[in-house]
Amino acid sequence: MKEISVRTTVRTQLVNITSQVASALSELDPGATLCHVFVPHTTAAVVINEAADPDVARDLAAAYQAMVPKIPFTHAEGNSDSHLLATLLGSSVTLPVDDGRIRLGTWQGIFFVDLDGPRSRRVWVSTGR
Amino acid sequence: MKEISVRTTVRTQLVNITSQVASALSELDPGATLCHVFVPHTTAAVVINEAADPDVARDLAAAYQAMVPKIPFTHAEGNSDSHLLATLLGSSVTLPVDDGRIRLGTWQGIFFVDLDGPRSRRVWVSTGR
Amino acid sequence: MKEISVRTTVRTQLVNITSQVASALSELDPGATLCHVFVPHTTAAVVINEAADPDVARDLAAAYQAMVPKIPFTHAEGNSDSHLLATLLGSSVTLPVDDGRIRLGTWQGIFFVDLDGPRSRRVWVSTGR
Repeated sequence: MKEISVRTTVRTQLVNITSQVASALSELDPGATLCHVFVPHTTAAVVINEAADPDVARDLAAAYQAMVPKIPFTHAEGNSDSHLLATLLGSSVTLPVDDGRIRLGTWQGIFFVDLDGPRSRRVWVSTGR
Repeated sequence: MKEISVRTTVRTQLVNITSQVASALSELDPGATLCHVFVPHTTAAVVINEAADPDVARDLAAAYQAMVPKIPFTHAEGNSDSHLLATLLGSSVTLPVDDGRIRLGTWQGIFFVDLDGPRSRRVWVSTGR
Repeated sequence: MKEISVRTTVRTQLVNITSQVASALSELDPGATLCHVFVPHTTAAVVINEAADPDVARDLAAAYQAMVPKIPFTHAEGNSDSHLLATLLGSSVTLPVDDGRIRLGTWQGIFFVDLDGPRSRRVWVSTGR
């Protein structure tokens, strides 16, 4: 397992970590068929989506916040919206690996999603075969 | 593969199954690098989120119900909201395994999410390496 | 890795690909314990849900569209709603495999979800063990 560090600068932010995941994978099992990317935080997530136009990541961040229902929350830290979105987006993604490299579609990238930043965050990369 | 049983008591409920998953894993491949937790139901899901403050799980259950759009549904059983949330939250989670143990962040736990309880439910735990 | 082709006919559509995934799996590793189904597109997803009543898939398609928040989007292609739903539903599912066969619950099927069709799409099937 390899650990990646991510530094976010605003509360809701998508950070493209594709090259960091690829680099971590190259130091793990060369015969892997699967790459697993895991976020060990409860107010952050990881998704795969378009990496070409940065407007997409900005639209996603705005839409996530707009989807949070306007209901009273109980959790004393005041960030139940972040926990909610973390469970909807998911704590991990799994990618196919071929000949030691991540296989992604033409427009896809891997994005760390901070939902309660700015913070210093970690991502764990593992393999399966 | 090992099967876990979960009994829920209300319609929408998160049940912390972390220790049951850890126990199932200990009876599977000791050399595993990945642990896969799968829900074989269409109105339930599994998520990873905060296990320290039980208010978080309660806030999540309330927020899931509040996010269901108020549109007419066709499915005759009347639980299309449960199917909808099951697809958004997901039927499985995958976790890194190191030295035979699940690796989770400090505040994370694994939660079975019933979206159409109360029922007796099952969860399947598998490994990859 | 095996590739599946899917042809959609409307903008938002769920297509049951369970038998195609099972067929692809039978040509891959017979000793696999996990089956990974990956969508290499940024405006499509894959989910597991009820395959018995086709009304469920229709209700899901309608509900996904109804959940998109009514906010102004920046991305020039005008399909930020599709990117949003793709990240919420997810780019892949992972299934347990036993004795060379996918293990699913009684009512479950695997659905390709087009969120910006009609298009010709691809799905990649891989294994882990």
